[in-house]
Amino acid sequence: MNVPGPLILLRHGQSTTNAEGRFTGWADVPLTAHGEKQAATAAQLLARDGLVPDAVHTSVLRRSIRTADILLDELDRSWIPVHRTWRLNERQYGALTGRVKREVRREVGPGQYRAWRRSLTAAPGPLPGGELARLRADPRYAALHGDGLPAVESLADMIARVAPYWADVLAGQLCSGRRVLVVAHGNALRALIAVLDRLTGQEIEELNIPTGAPLRYDFDRGLRPVVRGGAYLDPDSARTAAAAVAAEGQA
Amino acid sequence: MNVPGPLILLRHGQSTTNAEGRFTGWADVPLTAHGEKQAATAAQLLARDGLVPDAVHTSVLRRSIRTADILLDELDRSWIPVHRTWRLNERQYGALTGRVKREVRREVGPGQYRAWRRSLTAAPGPLPGGELARLRADPRYAALHGDGLPAVESLADMIARVAPYWADVLAGQLCSGRRVLVVAHGNALRALIAVLDRLTGQEIEELNIPTGAPLRYDFDRGLRPVVRGGAYLDPDSARTAAAAVAAEGQA
Repeated sequence: MNVPGPLILLRHGQSTTNAEGRFTGWADVPLTAHGEKQAATAAQLLARDGLVPDAVHTSVLRRSIRTADILLDELDRSWIPVHRTWRLNERQYGALTGRVKREVRREVGPGQYRAWRRSLTAAPGPLPGGELARLRADPRYAALHGDGLPAVESLADMIARVAPYWADVLAGQLCSGRRVLVVAHGNALRALIAVLDRLTGQEIEELNIPTGAPLRYDFDRGLRPVVRGGAYLDPDSARTAAAAVAAEGQA
Repeated sequence: MNVPGPLILLRHGQSTTNAEGRFTGWADVPLTAHGEKQAATAAQLLARDGLVPDAVHTSVLRRSIRTADILLDELDRSWIPVHRTWRLNERQYGALTGRVKREVRREVGPGQYRAWRRSLTAAPGPLPGGELARLRADPRYAALHGDGLPAVESLADMIARVAPYWADVLAGQLCSGRRVLVVAHGNALRALIAVLDRLTGQEIEELNIPTGAPLRYDFDRGLRPVVRGGAYLDPDSARTAAAAVAAEGQA
């Protein structure tokens, strides 16, 4: 077997609801101008490190799609194979969707707020019926018929939906030596990293993924990460931005 | 068998070399601001006519990719399956690549100029060796190794490369009832239409495809076009624009 190619994980650039401090979930919001700039900056980091990708994977939400489009255009790689899947969507945040984080934290207290955001198994209330019906009618989720479309997800639920995409799609591409870029969402990437690094529940709680900061994983021939946690291409700004994610809602 | 889905053909919006009156071929140039607006206008026509696509196909050149991206974003369909293929690339224009049409016409005379642009079999000289080597080193054409990468193409050559994509990919999607959007180039679409409508050499000469004008084909159960030549969604502006394409280089 070849040495596997590198995997680059990227959370989309800042979205309008990120800027407003809201839970977003499956709401399909656009990038801000700052988010678009972050995508271009990420492209420059990839070019600097010789990580121009051979294949790209996104969720079916426009903030990840647009981030990938901007980045690939910067790298002259708009033509590479594109894969879009609901399995890389952000966490279905149920009743919290669209709510201001600060207000939720004040309402339910910091312990419950932290559990909903960070723990492996906690989940807030389900998406209201009307919102769920609207998602069920959205053709992008037509394959998730019946009870397949989640009304809310814990991080454990996310791991269950991300793990098959890793095993069935990403792992094979990496093993054939390709450089693979995944542009997704904070919790989708936490779930993927939980699979890659076999994180404990405690480690999952402490993991925060900043927007627009490329994170590189290299693998040995057994497709195990060479360095647990990977390596941010710009570690200083990633550290600052991850701390800001951890502190969201506390302002 | 189901009734096949409709096929929408769209030539990319105006590119920078379109605006300059140059032969473009495989040169990978961006859209102008006007070209971006054309993509958004095309999206509105598709929405008006209930032609929101289920799948999209582009060349590997950024002017078709970007046109599709803008159009799909307008239609909230950025998440649909995307297929990119060199088989939908513009014609390889060989030695004419980058040349100003008006100057070429003056140089070689209107007969030769028209033959190079419009006839089924005429081809100008090949791409200079340096340019060809550059294309061979481009990873997007890595699968066209050896002599697979053309130094120049006639329209007959283009039909030979577009026809398999019709038979192997597009026809199957249409037969499963999907609405299929192809965003490509003037000569790639002439070649595809030559296949669909079994055009004669004379008809091929007279066919001009304007930028940004969606052209709809419907098919019977035998996948034959219901109306030969299809139907432009905005026939008046398409007619004017096609006449302008026919007159290129004569100003």
